[in-house]
Amino acid sequence: MNYGIVLFPSKKFQDTANAYRRRYDAHYANIPPHVTLKESFNFDEENLPLITRALRTIAKKHPPVVIDIYKVDTFYPQSTTIFYKIKENETLQSLNDALYTEPFPTEKEHSVFVPHVTIAQGLSKAEHADIIGQLTMTEVSHREEIDRMQLLYQLENGSWTVYETFLLEG
Amino acid sequence: MNYGIVLFPSKKFQDTANAYRRRYDAHYANIPPHVTLKESFNFDEENLPLITRALRTIAKKHPPVVIDIYKVDTFYPQSTTIFYKIKENETLQSLNDALYTEPFPTEKEHSVFVPHVTIAQGLSKAEHADIIGQLTMTEVSHREEIDRMQLLYQLENGSWTVYETFLLEG
Repeated sequence: MNYGIVLFPSKKFQDTANAYRRRYDAHYANIPPHVTLKESFNFDEENLPLITRALRTIAKKHPPVVIDIYKVDTFYPQSTTIFYKIKENETLQSLNDALYTEPFPTEKEHSVFVPHVTIAQGLSKAEHADIIGQLTMTEVSHREEIDRMQLLYQLENGSWTVYETFLLEG
Repeated sequence: MNYGIVLFPSKKFQDTANAYRRRYDAHYANIPPHVTLKESFNFDEENLPLITRALRTIAKKHPPVVIDIYKVDTFYPQSTTIFYKIKENETLQSLNDALYTEPFPTEKEHSVFVPHVTIAQGLSKAEHADIIGQLTMTEVSHREEIDRMQLLYQLENGSWTVYETFLLEG
């Protein structure tokens, strides 16, 4: 089974992100706007209690996370993904580190953790070139605190269902 | 803010339901396959702690729920919604009752609780007539236990995000 671990920002901010995602994000219908803490990983469903126990421990040790969004950026030329960039901070980095430590799979797809909320992906190079200028010029400034993380699993159609919420109570 | 309270069945059963929902359910992209315990209700976000506290108490008092799906049925002529029907049982009914008791809004849209997983909705009468015969003839027999319920809120685009999971530990 494929699992992922994310933060959902407030409804208000999700609505803002969706205004772009509706048009530009090929995964729009698969998952609400989110901050990925751990990328999709495969794990035996049998061993799920191991994962949920570890998540409970991690959640108890970490305080709520501040999400400070300050600009629109792109991963181009690695990919045509465009995103709201979040200022790095200790809690976010520590959560990310903990989620790449056993019992979780420790392999990283990307060497550096760039906390973000995706607003466009699956674009052609031409589409990306068309919209990146206008999007990066948009002024963005949003700050909020998120006090929970979510463990999700992926259905066969590519969409994600929440399995469990973990309150950040550290 | 609009909230709802649901059970998500297993991934396997969600995949089965989605095979129909993809074609027949106008809300396919808004939420994974689910059993509604409490229909969409409006509640002041400020008072959310009241709701989550109540849900924790209810979850602690109720054991995991058995979901026994035994046929495909329709709400026609009330609506053209087609669904997997779940055998009524005490725990399901008790959860439903508790979620229509204060501090939750107590008004009921439907007088009787018919536990189900929707697989088709938003159909025209003609479409409903076309597919209901074939769907109700499908033999269905599926039984599983669900040990958690989910509080969700609705985004402006109509889709639902999970706010919190409550483990049924009674």
